[in-house]
Amino acid sequence: MTTTRSDCLARDAADPLAPLREEFLLPEGTIYLDGNSLGVLPKATPARIAQVVQQEWGQDLIRSWNTAGWIDLAQRIGDKIARLVGANAGELIVGDSTSVNLYKALKSAVLLGNGSATRKYIVSERSNFPTDLYIADSVAREHGLTLKLVDAGELPAALNDELALLLLTHVNYRTGRIHDMAGITAAAHASGALVVWDLAHSAGAVPVDLKLADADFAVGCGYKYLNGGPGAPAFVWAHPRHTARMDREQLRQPLSGWLGHAAPFEFTTDYRPALGIQRFVCGTPAVLSMAALECGVDVFLRAEPHGGLAALRHKSLALSTLFIELVESQCAGRGLTLVSPRDPAQRGSQASFASPNGYAIMQALIARNVIGDFRAGAPDAPPESSDLLRFGFTPLYTRYVDVWDAAAHLQAVLASGEWREARFNQRAAVT
Amino acid sequence: MTTTRSDCLARDAADPLAPLREEFLLPEGTIYLDGNSLGVLPKATPARIAQVVQQEWGQDLIRSWNTAGWIDLAQRIGDKIARLVGANAGELIVGDSTSVNLYKALKSAVLLGNGSATRKYIVSERSNFPTDLYIADSVAREHGLTLKLVDAGELPAALNDELALLLLTHVNYRTGRIHDMAGITAAAHASGALVVWDLAHSAGAVPVDLKLADADFAVGCGYKYLNGGPGAPAFVWAHPRHTARMDREQLRQPLSGWLGHAAPFEFTTDYRPALGIQRFVCGTPAVLSMAALECGVDVFLRAEPHGGLAALRHKSLALSTLFIELVESQCAGRGLTLVSPRDPAQRGSQASFASPNGYAIMQALIARNVIGDFRAGAPDAPPESSDLLRFGFTPLYTRYVDVWDAAAHLQAVLASGEWREARFNQRAAVT
Repeated sequence: MTTTRSDCLARDAADPLAPLREEFLLPEGTIYLDGNSLGVLPKATPARIAQVVQQEWGQDLIRSWNTAGWIDLAQRIGDKIARLVGANAGELIVGDSTSVNLYKALKSAVLLGNGSATRKYIVSERSNFPTDLYIADSVAREHGLTLKLVDAGELPAALNDELALLLLTHVNYRTGRIHDMAGITAAAHASGALVVWDLAHSAGAVPVDLKLADADFAVGCGYKYLNGGPGAPAFVWAHPRHTARMDREQLRQPLSGWLGHAAPFEFTTDYRPALGIQRFVCGTPAVLSMAALECGVDVFLRAEPHGGLAALRHKSLALSTLFIELVESQCAGRGLTLVSPRDPAQRGSQASFASPNGYAIMQALIARNVIGDFRAGAPDAPPESSDLLRFGFTPLYTRYVDVWDAAAHLQAVLASGEWREARFNQRAAVT
Repeated sequence: MTTTRSDCLARDAADPLAPLREEFLLPEGTIYLDGNSLGVLPKATPARIAQVVQQEWGQDLIRSWNTAGWIDLAQRIGDKIARLVGANAGELIVGDSTSVNLYKALKSAVLLGNGSATRKYIVSERSNFPTDLYIADSVAREHGLTLKLVDAGELPAALNDELALLLLTHVNYRTGRIHDMAGITAAAHASGALVVWDLAHSAGAVPVDLKLADADFAVGCGYKYLNGGPGAPAFVWAHPRHTARMDREQLRQPLSGWLGHAAPFEFTTDYRPALGIQRFVCGTPAVLSMAALECGVDVFLRAEPHGGLAALRHKSLALSTLFIELVESQCAGRGLTLVSPRDPAQRGSQASFASPNGYAIMQALIARNVIGDFRAGAPDAPPESSDLLRFGFTPLYTRYVDVWDAAAHLQAVLASGEWREARFNQRAAVT
């Protein structure tokens, strides 16, 4: 029995999370299924940014480092994000880009790891997001290690005594497949290695419990599910056992900027790292971008009375499951192959379909104001590695009727053949 | 013959740069002499930021990477800053913090340098800004080098065959003393070493000609004289001979994030650095903060019809010279010692005075809405290294009458002894 549009309207009417849509300024007439690339604009953000620009910067100027708490932004926002990923206050800080934080985390993990001569590999997944691989490769080269890329199925065999460090993205950016963070971490630890997790497609999207999983390091992105704005600052977390050891042994990560100093305003000539996660702060924070990120994160805190992350996860899976059902029933025989896991427990907050015409189909959808994402694959690759249509579901503001309408548009694009006429705009996609 | 307040009003009336003050939103009744810590708010910025937030992000969302040119911001703003520091378009890019860019530049310089075993030192100035020293120390440790700190007078002797790399800030953040960029670079080159220049207190403040000086690498700050907003992104420049060699030999700086890849949207697993300075881009840029920086930089381009950088330098020195004259005549015997160079040719865009009561005096000035900066020094140090009152002069918006009034307030604070009653607020100062 097929779900009807009326069914979707009824589900929206009964949705306890529905009021949260009012927290955002969404473009009229657009179905936005790309919140895993760039999250939407929270309603609170424009006024907050205007306040930061006009009052805190324009009027109060340098005094705002104290009076407006700019100096505390990295930790204050970090404490809020910590609640979304199973970390405690004081363990996670915000600043710099995901790539820069990956470098800090990987360098620290190498420093803290089991440095036996047999451990010669940093291992990651071939389909990990490129910046993770590029940064890991640089760190490997700096330390006489080799970056070894494996497919997910080859991971268990790679967790052996040649493994120095494992770097994985928790939710795969192409397929949305979720790694078993606790299980893989335990297996890596059993092999004597440390693990760095990238939460770019997890934070704010799926349940994450870093402490329960006994993870070592994590980084994450502010501009996807956290709705922090284009290029929002990223975050980095380290398990307290590692920061405690760094404290004891006065270890540093090499991006030892002045605001990660134990007493930055003493202006001493020698670097003495701040205690705990504060040593992962580097230079002066980009205050405007930090302030926007805080607005995005605050929406999650306001979601708590509505059931919080558990309710968001429940709706996220309901949305992606519905989309998969509708697409598979309405677009059967049109060359789309589901590459996201069918099992909801293994699926992030997205649904991806392989299609050899994926680019043109997505352009045709965008022309209908249905915005998803295209991810290029390798020619003649298996579905998981070929051209993908990627649709992100963001339960804070995506409605069931949006999912129904998006599937109907996709059906129409394929049935009419209008994708053959789609304008080939310049490609760009920011993860 | 003492300059009177009327004289200053007359100089303002005759000042060809005076109209540029209208480019800024300045707090009423405040004399702001701290633009070398946090520059003021350009008038164009609030509307531009509102446009980025509400239209480009809120309405156009992911499409803005192309349609609003977000993807080009790093190079577009870089090309504008290049004009202020004697570099060509395509040689300088914007993004990340000064500290992170210092790391990129220092790591590259080590990579490209003369790696003979006798070259065991990275040399810098003891009074360099701490983040420079902290990052240089990390890079030194990573490469088996030692960071050696010298006083300015010891520099010539340090340029020898033990020198791997020299890191200097062109204008000293405490004293405002300008290093001879061309002369020191030539001497360092003659010794076989490379030089990294920090332009934090130079860009937009004093004449800089990186190409003429044959410099190797440079970094600089967006939130001081460039008026880019709190924590604005920084910039990095490399001489084309170095990027050309990096191109030929496929060398990378280790912060090899995805947007520094030659073809980031191909999402390949292997890092292939972009050509030229683009390889110094790392992760996704903080778009809000980048947009604000562009507004600040654009003011300098609008200053060109008014005489541009040469006229700004002329007025800057007129302002600081006037301030020094007024303070030395009106505050004689009050324990202030000029530590900035008396010779204008050696002085940046600031004037600093040592005072054992510097902190309290600055608090008393701030209570009178005269905002300068306090920089702590070492106890019992010579004047240059002791507690300082620091006053920055920003000829885009500082008037002669502001200088006169600031000196009068300082005289009153000292003569009345009210500084003894000054509230000791929490210290903070962001360089």
